[in-house]
Amino acid sequence: MAGDGNHFVGVDFGGTKILAGVFNSSFKLLKTVKLSTKPERGVEAVIERIERAVRAAVDEADLDLKHVRAMGLGAPGTVEPESGRVIYAINVGWENVPLKKELEKRLGLPVFIENDCKASTLGIYHLELKGKPRSMVGVFLGTGVGGGLILNGELYAGANFAAGEVGHMIIDAAGAKTGRTARGTFESLASRTAIFHRIKTAVKEGQKTILTEMLGPGLEEMRSGDLRRALRSGDKLIEKVVAEAAQYTGVAVANLISVLGPEVVALGGGVIEALGEEMMPIIEKRAEELLLPGTFNGVRILASQLGDHAGISGAVVLAQARSK
Amino acid sequence: MAGDGNHFVGVDFGGTKILAGVFNSSFKLLKTVKLSTKPERGVEAVIERIERAVRAAVDEADLDLKHVRAMGLGAPGTVEPESGRVIYAINVGWENVPLKKELEKRLGLPVFIENDCKASTLGIYHLELKGKPRSMVGVFLGTGVGGGLILNGELYAGANFAAGEVGHMIIDAAGAKTGRTARGTFESLASRTAIFHRIKTAVKEGQKTILTEMLGPGLEEMRSGDLRRALRSGDKLIEKVVAEAAQYTGVAVANLISVLGPEVVALGGGVIEALGEEMMPIIEKRAEELLLPGTFNGVRILASQLGDHAGISGAVVLAQARSK
Repeated sequence: MAGDGNHFVGVDFGGTKILAGVFNSSFKLLKTVKLSTKPERGVEAVIERIERAVRAAVDEADLDLKHVRAMGLGAPGTVEPESGRVIYAINVGWENVPLKKELEKRLGLPVFIENDCKASTLGIYHLELKGKPRSMVGVFLGTGVGGGLILNGELYAGANFAAGEVGHMIIDAAGAKTGRTARGTFESLASRTAIFHRIKTAVKEGQKTILTEMLGPGLEEMRSGDLRRALRSGDKLIEKVVAEAAQYTGVAVANLISVLGPEVVALGGGVIEALGEEMMPIIEKRAEELLLPGTFNGVRILASQLGDHAGISGAVVLAQARSK
Repeated sequence: MAGDGNHFVGVDFGGTKILAGVFNSSFKLLKTVKLSTKPERGVEAVIERIERAVRAAVDEADLDLKHVRAMGLGAPGTVEPESGRVIYAINVGWENVPLKKELEKRLGLPVFIENDCKASTLGIYHLELKGKPRSMVGVFLGTGVGGGLILNGELYAGANFAAGEVGHMIIDAAGAKTGRTARGTFESLASRTAIFHRIKTAVKEGQKTILTEMLGPGLEEMRSGDLRRALRSGDKLIEKVVAEAAQYTGVAVANLISVLGPEVVALGGGVIEALGEEMMPIIEKRAEELLLPGTFNGVRILASQLGDHAGISGAVVLAQARSK
């Protein structure tokens, strides 16, 4: 396999979209192409769409695949990094897919695969924080909630490649009493899904929000950006629901600090990108008031500036590191 | 400083007792001496008691301090391992005590200090599990709840030396709503203090337990062993309270597995020593039902067999490793 160029491709493969980005050797992003994932069309069709997004992005950058040294990809689920298998990805209904092998065959490039949140954690750590802290926890609030750990300067995999599943932390045991459900988890309390569910329930119960005027009574097309607009127009219901999600996030951040003592907790994902300005002060305050002063001292809690590009940035960090 | 013998001394320094043990070079425990801590007498007096316990244990083993190569000690609080300072130890009211320096002066031996739960984690990892797993979390239920992390085969300190404070994890956010309190933490729900408090409250509310017959209506002298005796005589209240603590411990163990993906979670401390037989099946079942199957696969949850000797065992592992 060639891969003798000096450019890199990073792919963020999610449940709804595939984002491919072309970077030069100093990690400057040249071009991106976004396609929808369409997981309902099956595994083969999605792999073909990833291939198409990569080829299109390379072409957008006026390059050819021969200019690309390696490609990295973040996938939404449990990934076995060495074999490049997606073991389990609930969002897209995948089980045991040899994604690395398939993409290498189609593109003729070395391909490196990681869990999407672990890839984003790598991206923030190396490109935004320049690898300076010794330890960092990445926490990503989107459709679900995921995370990644940097310990002693390295991405930490854990047994079963399962470390960093911060969204599964139970922070409300009272809500989790009924056996094998996701209730009471950080994810079930602070993801976009949780926030939207709480808003829809409140509207059904007769509470008022400007969102029904903006989007209609069913709130079907609601997106995180709509919440930001509602907040800025002083919508009390949305303010309360978003503040609640931020409080729960503060609890989860405090827990991660208690268990891991990281130098940095970096938050990202669509919810933080859209609502970070409102949520971050609440998250920080809640975490600080829950921690012993000695534990909180010197810990930085920040919202990543990479935004939607954290995933592709991390993917190219991965590609560059592993293709050396 | 000499320390040219081939024996080691391990000390478990807790809020109520000081346990000193003398080990030979193959980590066989020869003799122990236990003294009460009496923290109310002040820092100087406690250090003098540690010295006395060490000298007495060495004498019990028919040895002299010159036969001892080094001494390790686990202290109840935040410890800066390199300087050997106890930064903060709430149980004994210490702040910023140069314990290593003081003990080295008094004993003429190299002294190495760690947090007590981190020392116990080291002891279980090296002596009980022979250092075989790559990763392990130690969880200790006693007066409070503490822990320690072994990651990539090494004790993980974290920034501020604060990693492993598993007892501060909030697992019942609903109970933690009122600002800077410890409510809702794992420790406040499953420590001996929490269990005793719940029993006393139930008795005040008129619930029946055999413990009031055994110990009188105020339950002043209650110990973990009394709970075990009550359980074995079929006491329903005690059964319920202990099961509740075990359920909460299962939640905390599930969280640690989600975040860290360890190979082993080892439980210890006085509560597990006294009630492990009853609690462990509940803890395992609860953790398993809360985790995704892929995350739980292959994770071992076990009760340490070192019991009360985990602390001194870990302290000698520390002494041996750092005096090399």
